[in-house]
Amino acid sequence: MDRTLAFATLHQLAALIQKRAISPVELTTYYLERIAAYDQRLNSYLCVLAERALAAARAAETAIAGGHYLGPLHGIPLAIKDLIDLAGHATTGGSLLFKNRIAQEDATVARRLAQAGALFLGKTQMVEFAFGGVGINHHYGTPWNPWDPRVHRIPGGSSSGSGVGVAADLAPAALGSDTGGSVRIPSSFCGLVGLKPTFGRISNNGVLPLDSSLDCIGPLTRSVRDAALLFQVLAGPDPADPDTWSQPCEDVLEDLDGEVDGMRLCLPREYFWKDVDPEVEAAVKQAAHVFADLGVRVDEVSLKELDELAQLRSRGTPIAVEAYSRFREDLEQRLDQFDPIVSARMLDGRRMSAPDYFEIQRGYAQLRRRTHRALQQVDALLTPTTPFAALPAAEVDREDTYTRVNGLCLRNTGAANLLGLCALSLPCGFTRSGLPIGLQLIGRAWTEGRLLRLAHTYEQATPSPWLKQHPRVEAFG
Amino acid sequence: MDRTLAFATLHQLAALIQKRAISPVELTTYYLERIAAYDQRLNSYLCVLAERALAAARAAETAIAGGHYLGPLHGIPLAIKDLIDLAGHATTGGSLLFKNRIAQEDATVARRLAQAGALFLGKTQMVEFAFGGVGINHHYGTPWNPWDPRVHRIPGGSSSGSGVGVAADLAPAALGSDTGGSVRIPSSFCGLVGLKPTFGRISNNGVLPLDSSLDCIGPLTRSVRDAALLFQVLAGPDPADPDTWSQPCEDVLEDLDGEVDGMRLCLPREYFWKDVDPEVEAAVKQAAHVFADLGVRVDEVSLKELDELAQLRSRGTPIAVEAYSRFREDLEQRLDQFDPIVSARMLDGRRMSAPDYFEIQRGYAQLRRRTHRALQQVDALLTPTTPFAALPAAEVDREDTYTRVNGLCLRNTGAANLLGLCALSLPCGFTRSGLPIGLQLIGRAWTEGRLLRLAHTYEQATPSPWLKQHPRVEAFG
Repeated sequence: MDRTLAFATLHQLAALIQKRAISPVELTTYYLERIAAYDQRLNSYLCVLAERALAAARAAETAIAGGHYLGPLHGIPLAIKDLIDLAGHATTGGSLLFKNRIAQEDATVARRLAQAGALFLGKTQMVEFAFGGVGINHHYGTPWNPWDPRVHRIPGGSSSGSGVGVAADLAPAALGSDTGGSVRIPSSFCGLVGLKPTFGRISNNGVLPLDSSLDCIGPLTRSVRDAALLFQVLAGPDPADPDTWSQPCEDVLEDLDGEVDGMRLCLPREYFWKDVDPEVEAAVKQAAHVFADLGVRVDEVSLKELDELAQLRSRGTPIAVEAYSRFREDLEQRLDQFDPIVSARMLDGRRMSAPDYFEIQRGYAQLRRRTHRALQQVDALLTPTTPFAALPAAEVDREDTYTRVNGLCLRNTGAANLLGLCALSLPCGFTRSGLPIGLQLIGRAWTEGRLLRLAHTYEQATPSPWLKQHPRVEAFG
Repeated sequence: MDRTLAFATLHQLAALIQKRAISPVELTTYYLERIAAYDQRLNSYLCVLAERALAAARAAETAIAGGHYLGPLHGIPLAIKDLIDLAGHATTGGSLLFKNRIAQEDATVARRLAQAGALFLGKTQMVEFAFGGVGINHHYGTPWNPWDPRVHRIPGGSSSGSGVGVAADLAPAALGSDTGGSVRIPSSFCGLVGLKPTFGRISNNGVLPLDSSLDCIGPLTRSVRDAALLFQVLAGPDPADPDTWSQPCEDVLEDLDGEVDGMRLCLPREYFWKDVDPEVEAAVKQAAHVFADLGVRVDEVSLKELDELAQLRSRGTPIAVEAYSRFREDLEQRLDQFDPIVSARMLDGRRMSAPDYFEIQRGYAQLRRRTHRALQQVDALLTPTTPFAALPAAEVDREDTYTRVNGLCLRNTGAANLLGLCALSLPCGFTRSGLPIGLQLIGRAWTEGRLLRLAHTYEQATPSPWLKQHPRVEAFG
């Protein structure tokens, strides 16, 4: 049995469940056993919900046996980041402060997945309050990137546990959240597909906020089709989140196999390519050739919007202002309860003046409009997701390197959040030492369908890394 | 001729022009002569555009004589506030700093009026940079409220000249702008109809900004139908202003004579009624009886949103932050060029912290959503526009009174801006000493048509103050 299940995609699992080759309880047991065997060291789950998951699996099994098959998520176990509310369980946000903060209701995204028949294996590790791109957590520990059993490498953050859990096959897919790259960075470092939808596409109701104008829930999966499947279930207006877009979402699954011939992909010069590791640069540029061979028009562009973005980023981090405001009392009275690498950035928010904050936010608003216009004739930008593959945690978790590495991790991904775009990270190869490399496709707001189609076509044309290579998870037993 | 024209509404003038009882040139000459005779003391215009107006009047005259009548604004002279760009003329914003700031293009509102055939007599006085509700300007002088020739009373601001000019019949109607009440306050003090549309309804392209999330252009007129006419021409999406609503506007003129029977009008308790002059209170409550007699359902409500509004207002003025940011360099280097009552408030913006600013703005955003829901079953709120009639300028323009009086002038009107609503001020009587009293109707976003219909029905049912009483403008000769 295991040989069929190992590193299977959601679509493969759904086929097995639908033809009753495997039952939801067997499948759930498979993941729970792997978690028991390997997660002590991998540290991807903050909380495993074994009983709840098995109960839901039994219910799914009964329903399916009775002929009530709900669709491709029915009976499928998933992992979700521990900033998403599940009624009756704590939503810690990766923080000691929220250790006992029990949610009263399910988040809208959890409810939608459950309504589609999915169940939850547990809640995954994360950077405290999702405020960091590296994946370090000094209170609950930093998950171990499974692609290197010998050296503890960073998983990428903030959805560190979701990345590690899916890469190590302790879940077939997971939800993360992405305010500046927190779905895409762990996807890049862990060799996964990670989608950051347009802000407002997926409800944030019941999700612990970091920056309420940027936060996006998104899937981490092992195939593009799986990302499209989860996106399809999650997307769409929610009366409980006034920021969700009032238009229902197109059918991205149906669109996945559409034509890419004649679409236009641009490699933006400068901004995204500074300090990029040569192996990463080569892999992403090689991917550009693959797209060109598929009939996609590939060219280079200079976007002056990106120079201005770099300038605005150098003026300070508005996220820190909202974060400081949200935790003001705790920061002033219980600073020792915070992860110091997180609280230091929040306290930066206290020092910013209102006119500076206003100018930076206005600058971003203007830049968003101009970028939207500048990309009218472009289907996607192609960039590296992160400038390098996963670094050793010990190299990064140092006073003299953390800020710089964290900034570099977030630079390419954060551009999409700050400019109001949607984006996707996709594996495009490995370094010589066997670490995954991610490429990023960035598109205009509301064009997730087009990004997914491009990514899917690329994935079909190149042997998916998951077909050739898996992390040696056994080494963590 | 004069007897027909004096204090005529736009609709009366349009009828005279259409049947060629008067020509655009005669009409323009009538106003230019009145301006020459009375505006030395009234001080409502910053700049009279006699030649430009007469040239446009001659062109209109020729077109109409040739059978090309464009509609009810064709050949009609108007006044516009001096923060609206007219190509080739300075847009001073009431400031010495911008004395020679020549506009390159017409503002969208100016272009729309011109396309409808209107012409411009000149640009009207205002509070420096529109930042104040009283109407005082220490550099260009404070316009004289025409309703009291003996005592210099405040005109209301910031559209002080637009209010005085229309009240004294130095123009049949004018444009103002309203960020916290700047159309409605001079309308209240000068006995006019003043409409503040929903934010995003009318383009701000080519308008000097004060708070880019609150600024609204609106008409000051002597009848509700005139306000509806100007609104209809001005409203609607503009590609040059990304904040304009993408839905075109309904036909409010056609809607004006609709049924009000069964509509619901609420008198909100508390907030709007503190420190209200008994004569003003009596007049507004009397108006409630008129509405009830017309079949409108009138009741009282307590809105807890208003308590929170009062609390948020006490935490500081976000407008000051944007204003400081906009004039940062001038404030730091050329403070003596500012009107001290304006610069003092701008400098408050420098002192606010980013987290405080964020919290106040988030508070307003939440309050806007809740208020919208709370008013679902309400067609309009009825309140006094200002807590008192026009006060003597000498009483207000003192260090110990200005801040308090300015705050009171803006309190009732500002609520509509801050809560994301639309509102209208309408004359509803006079004090015993002959000063106009204004009532305010406040409606949910995008319901200007309903407000105008209610106001129009009230105006038809009560003898309009303009039928009984005019300011004795001759006294200013």
